[in-house]
Amino acid sequence: MPGLDKIIEELLESYRQDGLINPAGEANLPSKKSINGILRELTELAMPGFGEMDPLDHDNLALITAERVNRAARNLEREVEKSVAFGVRLENPRGTKPLRRCRAAAELLVRDFFSGLPELRRMLALDIKAAFKGDPAAKSMEEVILSYPGLEAILVHRLARFFWHRKVPLIPRMMSEIVHSKTGIDIHPGAEIGGSFFIDHGTGVVIGETTVIGSNVKLYQGVTLGALSVKKEEANRKRHPTIEDDVTIYSGATILGGATVIGRGSIIGGNVWITSSIPPNSTVYVGSADQIMGQRH
Amino acid sequence: MPGLDKIIEELLESYRQDGLINPAGEANLPSKKSINGILRELTELAMPGFGEMDPLDHDNLALITAERVNRAARNLEREVEKSVAFGVRLENPRGTKPLRRCRAAAELLVRDFFSGLPELRRMLALDIKAAFKGDPAAKSMEEVILSYPGLEAILVHRLARFFWHRKVPLIPRMMSEIVHSKTGIDIHPGAEIGGSFFIDHGTGVVIGETTVIGSNVKLYQGVTLGALSVKKEEANRKRHPTIEDDVTIYSGATILGGATVIGRGSIIGGNVWITSSIPPNSTVYVGSADQIMGQRH
Amino acid sequence: MPGLDKIIEELLESYRQDGLINPAGEANLPSKKSINGILRELTELAMPGFGEMDPLDHDNLALITAERVNRAARNLEREVEKSVAFGVRLENPRGTKPLRRCRAAAELLVRDFFSGLPELRRMLALDIKAAFKGDPAAKSMEEVILSYPGLEAILVHRLARFFWHRKVPLIPRMMSEIVHSKTGIDIHPGAEIGGSFFIDHGTGVVIGETTVIGSNVKLYQGVTLGALSVKKEEANRKRHPTIEDDVTIYSGATILGGATVIGRGSIIGGNVWITSSIPPNSTVYVGSADQIMGQRH
Amino acid sequence: MPGLDKIIEELLESYRQDGLINPAGEANLPSKKSINGILRELTELAMPGFGEMDPLDHDNLALITAERVNRAARNLEREVEKSVAFGVRLENPRGTKPLRRCRAAAELLVRDFFSGLPELRRMLALDIKAAFKGDPAAKSMEEVILSYPGLEAILVHRLARFFWHRKVPLIPRMMSEIVHSKTGIDIHPGAEIGGSFFIDHGTGVVIGETTVIGSNVKLYQGVTLGALSVKKEEANRKRHPTIEDDVTIYSGATILGGATVIGRGSIIGGNVWITSSIPPNSTVYVGSADQIMGQRH
Amino acid sequence: MPGLDKIIEELLESYRQDGLINPAGEANLPSKKSINGILRELTELAMPGFGEMDPLDHDNLALITAERVNRAARNLEREVEKSVAFGVRLENPRGTKPLRRCRAAAELLVRDFFSGLPELRRMLALDIKAAFKGDPAAKSMEEVILSYPGLEAILVHRLARFFWHRKVPLIPRMMSEIVHSKTGIDIHPGAEIGGSFFIDHGTGVVIGETTVIGSNVKLYQGVTLGALSVKKEEANRKRHPTIEDDVTIYSGATILGGATVIGRGSIIGGNVWITSSIPPNSTVYVGSADQIMGQRH
Amino acid sequence: MPGLDKIIEELLESYRQDGLINPAGEANLPSKKSINGILRELTELAMPGFGEMDPLDHDNLALITAERVNRAARNLEREVEKSVAFGVRLENPRGTKPLRRCRAAAELLVRDFFSGLPELRRMLALDIKAAFKGDPAAKSMEEVILSYPGLEAILVHRLARFFWHRKVPLIPRMMSEIVHSKTGIDIHPGAEIGGSFFIDHGTGVVIGETTVIGSNVKLYQGVTLGALSVKKEEANRKRHPTIEDDVTIYSGATILGGATVIGRGSIIGGNVWITSSIPPNSTVYVGSADQIMGQRH
Repeated sequence: MPGLDKIIEELLESYRQDGLINPAGEANLPSKKSINGILRELTELAMPGFGEMDPLDHDNLALITAERVNRAARNLEREVEKSVAFGVRLENPRGTKPLRRCRAAAELLVRDFFSGLPELRRMLALDIKAAFKGDPAAKSMEEVILSYPGLEAILVHRLARFFWHRKVPLIPRMMSEIVHSKTGIDIHPGAEIGGSFFIDHGTGVVIGETTVIGSNVKLYQGVTLGALSVKKEEANRKRHPTIEDDVTIYSGATILGGATVIGRGSIIGGNVWITSSIPPNSTVYVGSADQIMGQRH
Repeated sequence: MPGLDKIIEELLESYRQDGLINPAGEANLPSKKSINGILRELTELAMPGFGEMDPLDHDNLALITAERVNRAARNLEREVEKSVAFGVRLENPRGTKPLRRCRAAAELLVRDFFSGLPELRRMLALDIKAAFKGDPAAKSMEEVILSYPGLEAILVHRLARFFWHRKVPLIPRMMSEIVHSKTGIDIHPGAEIGGSFFIDHGTGVVIGETTVIGSNVKLYQGVTLGALSVKKEEANRKRHPTIEDDVTIYSGATILGGATVIGRGSIIGGNVWITSSIPPNSTVYVGSADQIMGQRH
Repeated sequence: MPGLDKIIEELLESYRQDGLINPAGEANLPSKKSINGILRELTELAMPGFGEMDPLDHDNLALITAERVNRAARNLEREVEKSVAFGVRLENPRGTKPLRRCRAAAELLVRDFFSGLPELRRMLALDIKAAFKGDPAAKSMEEVILSYPGLEAILVHRLARFFWHRKVPLIPRMMSEIVHSKTGIDIHPGAEIGGSFFIDHGTGVVIGETTVIGSNVKLYQGVTLGALSVKKEEANRKRHPTIEDDVTIYSGATILGGATVIGRGSIIGGNVWITSSIPPNSTVYVGSADQIMGQRH
Repeated sequence: MPGLDKIIEELLESYRQDGLINPAGEANLPSKKSINGILRELTELAMPGFGEMDPLDHDNLALITAERVNRAARNLEREVEKSVAFGVRLENPRGTKPLRRCRAAAELLVRDFFSGLPELRRMLALDIKAAFKGDPAAKSMEEVILSYPGLEAILVHRLARFFWHRKVPLIPRMMSEIVHSKTGIDIHPGAEIGGSFFIDHGTGVVIGETTVIGSNVKLYQGVTLGALSVKKEEANRKRHPTIEDDVTIYSGATILGGATVIGRGSIIGGNVWITSSIPPNSTVYVGSADQIMGQRH
Repeated sequence: MPGLDKIIEELLESYRQDGLINPAGEANLPSKKSINGILRELTELAMPGFGEMDPLDHDNLALITAERVNRAARNLEREVEKSVAFGVRLENPRGTKPLRRCRAAAELLVRDFFSGLPELRRMLALDIKAAFKGDPAAKSMEEVILSYPGLEAILVHRLARFFWHRKVPLIPRMMSEIVHSKTGIDIHPGAEIGGSFFIDHGTGVVIGETTVIGSNVKLYQGVTLGALSVKKEEANRKRHPTIEDDVTIYSGATILGGATVIGRGSIIGGNVWITSSIPPNSTVYVGSADQIMGQRH
Repeated sequence: MPGLDKIIEELLESYRQDGLINPAGEANLPSKKSINGILRELTELAMPGFGEMDPLDHDNLALITAERVNRAARNLEREVEKSVAFGVRLENPRGTKPLRRCRAAAELLVRDFFSGLPELRRMLALDIKAAFKGDPAAKSMEEVILSYPGLEAILVHRLARFFWHRKVPLIPRMMSEIVHSKTGIDIHPGAEIGGSFFIDHGTGVVIGETTVIGSNVKLYQGVTLGALSVKKEEANRKRHPTIEDDVTIYSGATILGGATVIGRGSIIGGNVWITSSIPPNSTVYVGSADQIMGQRH
């Protein structure tokens, strides 16, 4: 195609000028594809036999688990090391790169992460039960595991949360976006979420970075737990609400503000807009009192 | 990595304790990956030549159709058999497994399913026309087929509906979640939907299990057709609304309750919240009367 | 499976009757899979080194860029040629197909497209900065590139817009649906969007065909920029709103109508429903005046 | 890389000059990759369940066989059509291309080919028995099917032979080279080979175009059945030997010439060089008479 | 394609009649593809870092080794179990299948196999040195590992030999045929081969089932170590020669017979045909005495 | 599997002891898989349109050629750099690694290599004509290109030869082994081969490192051009024969020795063993004079 050589030259020139490129040789970033594969592997380790990887039977369970843990640990260590090194450069752009120390930190992190897997499975079992109990349409636990996007979102959140808590940059947000893309549920890895959590349908749910959620909370599609202030300089303050135990929030409700607390046992109706605290055991709804809140399939 | 052996042992111990595993050898479940492949194949059979599988011409149409029907039948039979066997175990956990009978039931179901394909194509043609007619931005039928997520959602719903109707567990919900993940449109396979159905944009639409929808109905993004009651013991009642023929429901509207009927020819405005019946040919909107309902691109 | 031969014959008969098939030999359509691959390639060319294709270093940057441009140009030319030929048939169904001319038009279009890539990268750099500045939770530019779905949506929109502007059918809409499926953000390729644009979270955003958006505009999840009229015969009029510079629109707001103008510097609160123009520097919100608009994680 | 543009231009210039290119658009040739896939499919049809394709059980045997025959027929028809069209051009380079007729001829050929598959399976069963009987090291029929290259070579030969006999160009030779590459056994598709044929080890065996071989013949590695004359103008004469029934030829033996006949029941020792006929029931060997011919593992 | 249905029916009928099929459900056989993958994995474990699997560094060596051993053990156990069960059926066709015991036997075999890997690596290191020393054209050990087919053949032989020795049917022969197909070197897994073994070029080499080879033996291409007798009933006797230590056999030589012993330190010239024993330190050649044996590149 | 942990530890210990591993981080070696891909790419560049890569037409020939040259150059440069660095370490094991210089050398080598491609295509065209002319069974040039292993072997040899000549280690030998594995033809990259070269059938052909072959030479299967001496210390001498123009060598012939010259126009019969020079225009054969040499299919 005539003229293509010149176009290529201009594109290369534009790379040289703005530096908006990420050459592998210098300061590599974690790989989306690899994080995706790690999430698949961890999902298999959390709920063995329900996914699409190698067939599983009682006899090969030990062999396949050892293989998966070793593989996931190896892949995770590589990605965590890149993230840790990125964090070091971000804080200290001109510093020498203590690469050896990043590797050691990554190894430590990954080991701690895997030590927590049995506990994570206990949390997950509670989430599965909450979903089964919370949705009249659910016919079996297996149906929940195989077809509830809310379960996938909370599982990935609990994995991502570990890395956020340990201040690993990039990876937790990459994990949360991977599951956001699949489920339409956007949970920031900074959010703290208690046990027996259930999101039904889920498309459009947004849960912000400093949200705190208690136990036995249930959300429907389109719920926003957001911030009132969006100023960059307030990034380190608590900007998102606190949801206490046993709260249900129906579809499309919006709850904003770091000081906003939804008291335990409350029910927040669909499409409600809330920017200040609600006392425990309240029922908040839009429109006339004879409308009972809630929606379900 | 030192310590990994011990971690693996703890993980295996956690598998032993909670039993949250699905070993292939015992009571296998249908495979998400396989259901996904079957949906791709059925989409090709419903609209031959528009997808990404083998190139199609008039001369090889017969060969390729025979091949696809045989392959899809084989794969579907295997997954349906697993689902039927799962259903038998669910109802009768200690019973002996009449595996031969599950296979025969699966074969019968699959044959009936394929017998209905020509009729399904007639329904689909009406849906395509409804989309073309209903969206001023649509320039051609081909554009509708190639780029309207609402069409993909209704096609998969009509496929999943067959298996729901015949009481096959798991598969219909797995199908509806696959297309929910791709389109953001969540239609429970239990919903009954009439001809010439059109969903525009679609992200966030939720249609519950016992919803009944007439002909020539049009929905926009974010519409919820949900339940008022979410008690598990009412799971067998009609919990979701009835939408009669020729109704249009604009974006973000929420219609709840098993006794709620939207009368034929009505227009429901955006963001409206409805929990009781609306007479035929009504127009319901939020805000001042001079606001004309509707939104489109 | 007995009876399958008859079913296949009926299916073939149904193909013969309704003609809802697309045989490759006659009037081929662009391929979704190929458009998908082209978008991946163009994303790599726009932000080299951040994606998953071949590893990149400073030494091989020239070789890999030349290779990618040539490959993308070749694939794009093939798909554009099919689209142009489809457009010709659509306007003139019985005309002879001037295939040579379609190929020439495709070559010209593709060359022009690639000439514009350096400029597109400048726009994209502004969008990245807008996202970083606009979200307190964003810790680095790299985080924005690796995990913000809004950035992916605006990048693909700027690519698709070129083909829409040049009246290539099908391809721009196929591109916008591919990214809609991944992000839940549905931007019609006809929309005009200024520099430094930012969509946060994004699920459920709909931006209509004749929308015009200025610079430094920020949207949150669930915002609709839609039409009041959905009559097919008004398809050629401006049906969607105009958003001037420096406007922020919070989650769930709906703004409708081709004559509706949101004046520069205005703030539109969450869940607000607007169908008429708003003067510059206004603040519009639902509920009591002490509620400050906005939500964030 | 500086200078690459110029190199590319020179390469394109060299393509223009010598014409040693095969553009798909004009006169396409059969595809090696496709022929390879067809051979795999036909091998599965000939010996169902021994290969690596979809798992097979008694219940899905009918579905999978119908699917495979349809797929193989479709792929084979496409490649045969290209070959037939190539043959037409070769004989009549300036003629108009009667493409319709090539398609019809291909369809007829493919149908005849599949009609012969049951008979081919009967031949193959005899070959398997001959191998089991002929090799003391063979422990079971299954071992022969899974690990004897000679069986693979004769199976592919019997397939390729059909197309050679029907004067389809290119495809039979492509088939014989695919199996030559895998087994080191080079049988020209023109060779006529009787029932119960066995080649042990096989590496280096060459069987020429006009060879005729009877029943119950056994060959070892490195045997050549070749021509004395290699003049192009004698290409249409019988140039290779005739091997009558019940002959055994040991490793490294060379038998040349179209008039050379090895009489029935003869044994030809290793490394023997023969260019004239041998009467029935002869034993021919190199060296002293006390050496008994033969070698085996 | 008209008539295809009838052809499919005839093919199915032919399957029913001759039973030459292997349905997965009944008595499954080891998979060629799986054995192939296991050989690749074992090659990586034997010479880590030289192959094409995951990149290897000192830090991940432990993780990747544990992962590979677990994966290879799992895959191998499955294939060995199928082979053992096949062997049981072969000896006792009407017997009940003690499947549990086959699994236990497979587990034991696989554990023993892996216990022997360090010793196998010591043998392999000697073979590499023998190749480097034995070929003047070899420039480095790395060249030997990366490009000597003889090394690959002896490695696979040493692996296959273990299973042969332990009387596992099918698998050892499948392994030897996989490497025969790649290298043209056909070593029966029953052959006993000492340390520091080297085959140069290798195409056409055949080493029979009961061959015994000492240490420091060197073979060239086309050498046959075969049997004089090919009667099935003598299958359990030693039928192939014994090659003592420090023997070199040049290309194309044929040595036959179970009682034939090539005495230590002998040199056998190219194309020589030997059917009786040769005393130690002999030189055997064809033709005049002034011809020095040997050939090399 | 109990005991596996201990086995893994022993294997790791064995790695530590013998150092027979190749960790990527230190001194990486060229990759077989990558060299394989490069050969496929170069084969496409040498004979565009005959292979299995992207479909080719006259309109996209320029785009696809530019893409391929850039891709092949990039991949080749990476592998050549690793090889050059390996060569530097081999000669100077303790030296500092001048990595920059290896990269520069690789770039220069690759550019020179591509500059020679048009000339290589001229050589190849002669080889194709020689094959067509030399085999009475060849029906067309296309048949030669699609199904003659001898052509593939000489093409790869001419590519590998370039790198041998420029003293790049490992890569040329890896290339020659790749094609040896596919064709059974083993040509050392050091061999010098003139124009219009043809090998028929080819299995078992060995051509040594210091062989010199003139123009219009034809070989059959099993021919060895080898060395008399195999002492490591004579590795730098000419050890293999010289074959002058217009010589034909029939199957199984062996010609040995660096001083051995086969005079122009000679014919060497099958299975002949030659260790001294033959004058021009000689005919050498085994056995009685009435036997005419040659074999063919």
